[in-house]
This record gives sequence, C-alpha cells and structure tokens, in this order.
Amino acid sequence: MSEHTPAPATPTNAAPAGPSSYLRAVVGLVAFTRTVACTRYAKDADKAPTMTARMSIMRMSAAAVAGYDRLAQAAASAGVDTDTEAQRFVGALGDVDERLRPSDWHERLVKTYLAFGLLTDFSAALADRLEEPLRSVLLDEIADERLGSLATGELLGAIDSDAQLAARLGLWGRRVVGEEIGALQRLLTSHPELAEGSADATDLHQVLPQGAVTRMAVLGLRG
Amino acid sequence: MSEHTPAPATPTNAAPAGPSSYLRAVVGLVAFTRTVACTRYAKDADKAPTMTARMSIMRMSAAAVAGYDRLAQAAASAGVDTDTEAQRFVGALGDVDERLRPSDWHERLVKTYLAFGLLTDFSAALADRLEEPLRSVLLDEIADERLGSLATGELLGAIDSDAQLAARLGLWGRRVVGEEIGALQRLLTSHPELAEGSADATDLHQVLPQGAVTRMAVLGLRG
Repeated sequence: MSEHTPAPATPTNAAPAGPSSYLRAVVGLVAFTRTVACTRYAKDADKAPTMTARMSIMRMSAAAVAGYDRLAQAAASAGVDTDTEAQRFVGALGDVDERLRPSDWHERLVKTYLAFGLLTDFSAALADRLEEPLRSVLLDEIADERLGSLATGELLGAIDSDAQLAARLGLWGRRVVGEEIGALQRLLTSHPELAEGSADATDLHQVLPQGAVTRMAVLGLRG
Repeated sequence: MSEHTPAPATPTNAAPAGPSSYLRAVVGLVAFTRTVACTRYAKDADKAPTMTARMSIMRMSAAAVAGYDRLAQAAASAGVDTDTEAQRFVGALGDVDERLRPSDWHERLVKTYLAFGLLTDFSAALADRLEEPLRSVLLDEIADERLGSLATGELLGAIDSDAQLAARLGLWGRRVVGEEIGALQRLLTSHPELAEGSADATDLHQVLPQGAVTRMAVLGLRG
C-alpha cells in the first residue's frame, strides 16, 4: 500500500505541506485500536457463556472492522494512508494480553473493559488535539465502545451480591490497570511522535489513572 | 431467545409439524461454524506480518458475523431459532485449537486453511441433504471461504522454493488434519441428530479424508 499513498491534500494555510507526523501517528494509533478491538472481542465472544452474548460481542468485533474502514476513508481525504501509519503499532502493546490470562468469564469482562477502556482514553486524549474534520471522525470511532454496557450489565449484579467475587475482581482489575498503563507508557516512549501534539506530556500520564479509577467504579470495584 | 421462538412455518406436506431435528441441528452447526470463523480469523489476523493481510483477514472475520445474521434470518422463516440451535455446538470441537499452536505465520495459515476447511467440507456434506430453500442459503454461506486464496497466495511460492519448509509444513499439515478429523468424528458421536439425514453415515467419514488430501494438494503439500 505504501507505494501507492495518495498525494497529500493541498494544505489550507501556509503550514507544512502534507499531514503532520503527529496527525499520521494518531490516525495510525486509533486505526490500530480498531484492529485490537476486533481480535479482543472475537476472542472474548468465543468464551461467552450464552449464544446471545457470543453474538453481541462478535457484532462489536465486526463493527470495529467497519470502523477501521470508515476511518481509513476519512484519513485518505487528508492524505494519510492508514495501513501504513497503523503498521508501526503492531506489537507495540507488548505481551500484556498474553500475560493477563483471565480464569473465568467475569475476569475476562473486567480485563477487556479496563484494558481496552484505558487504550480508548489514551487514544481519545491524543485525537482530541487534532484539528477538524479528522478530530471528530476519530473521536466518533473511539466512542463506539459498546462492551461497557454489556460488561456492567453482567458484572454489577454479580459483584453486588458476592463480596468474595468483588474482592477477587478488584485485585484482578488493579493488576489489569497496572499492566495496561505500563504498556501505554512504554508505547509513548517508543513512539515519541505521539507526544508532539501535547503542550504538556504529563497530561497523558494523568488521563490514564483517572480513567482507571472511573472505570473500576463503573464496575462497582474499588480502584 | 428460546422463549421467543417464532411459530414454525406451516409444513408443505403432511410430514412432521415444524422443522426436523436434523434441519435444526444442521442450521445450528453451520451457524456455529460462522462464529468459529469470526474468532479464528480475528486471531490469525492479529499475527499477520503486514497490515494489508491483517485487514484482509479481519474483513473475513467481520463477513462471517454478517453471514451468521443472514443465515439466522433465513432460518427464522423456517421456524428455526439459530441462537438456540447453535448453542449446543459451543465447545463441541474440544481443545483442538489450543493444542495446535502454530510456531510461525506459515504454520498458522496451514492450520486455519486445513482445519477450518475440513469443518467446511463436513458442514457442506450435511447441509447438502436439506431441502430448499435453506439448503442453498447454508451452502452459500459455507462457500464464502475467502482464506483459501490468501493462504495459497502466501504459501505456494514459499513452499515451492524451500524443500525444508515444505517438509515441515507437510508434517504440520498432517497433524492438523489428524486432530481436526478426530474432533469432527467425536462431534458426530456426541450429536447423533447430525447422522439422521444420512442414508449412510460412512459417507461423512469419507468426505473428510478426501477433503484433506485435496486441501493439502492445493497448498502444494503431500497428504
């Protein structure tokens, strides 16, 4: 694909010709998160206890693929080849997914909700600094996060009525948060172009712990 | 969903009221194979060496989910609730997928092409015995198997030019075939309703080895 990158759109002001390296990196990252969602949801769905949950989550997986294609189309109009820009992030999250092996369906839901949610918060904070129209396109795709209501629906009742489960999932959730924040901080170090759009890089390091506390609380877990 | 199964369509002859247990089982099996395709493709895509291959395979994963929904719609017209019928097959393939851990991308392609291909042959042989219009609907979904051309495209050149790779993939392929045929035979034993449509149950035991030889040959491997 890289050999056939479309010519960059004519810039509307006298700014640097073609998309900035920050814009290209953020498009790549958000597109990459769509592919992460596809695989993670498909793997989760395969372990779902009912066909109804299995199909709901598989439809989220398919929707993430459609989201990638929508995003790529919008990015092409801005002169960005999404496949090329996303490529750099393949493997950039390390082996977090392999190291966090859920032992049951509840742990699996907590893991995906928290880990993928933090990736979402991270991507949204970066995309928010872009200019329109791509800013809205990316934020819309990032916001299309449907696992939350399914996860809270399945978890809240169980957690409320079982203190032991709540304690176990609380510990597990804190481990997931720790691993994922570590992975995202390493990603930021290995991809310094992602920090270019930020007046203050410490912003990003605050977004993650805040999001983690909020997301734990949404599940009824103590952060 | 089962509480809301639509009323069975009026039978066109004096045969048993409502869909037969064979019809229901085959609809369930074919629908289940769509969910297997979703997860297997999404996992494979995550290991693809290029973004182009990653996205091609993820689009196959999403297409399998759309296929499930098309199939479920057609089955509903025949009074069959697909979620309910597919549920029985969850876990019925055992741990073949976990036991066959590919060590590289080539082994992964061989595994999915052969294992999923045999499941396809198996499902097609069963669906072929149904009456229209569901027979064609199911066979159309089963035939929507797009990994073959990608797998042969990536493998044939590599296998032709590297005798050592051909030997290793040949051994691996035979192992995949053995494991998958074993799993499908156990599935047939654990779900005797699948044998009801067959004049001669030994047919199915012939379909699989024949398909294995053909599919190994397509990849340029000796069966």
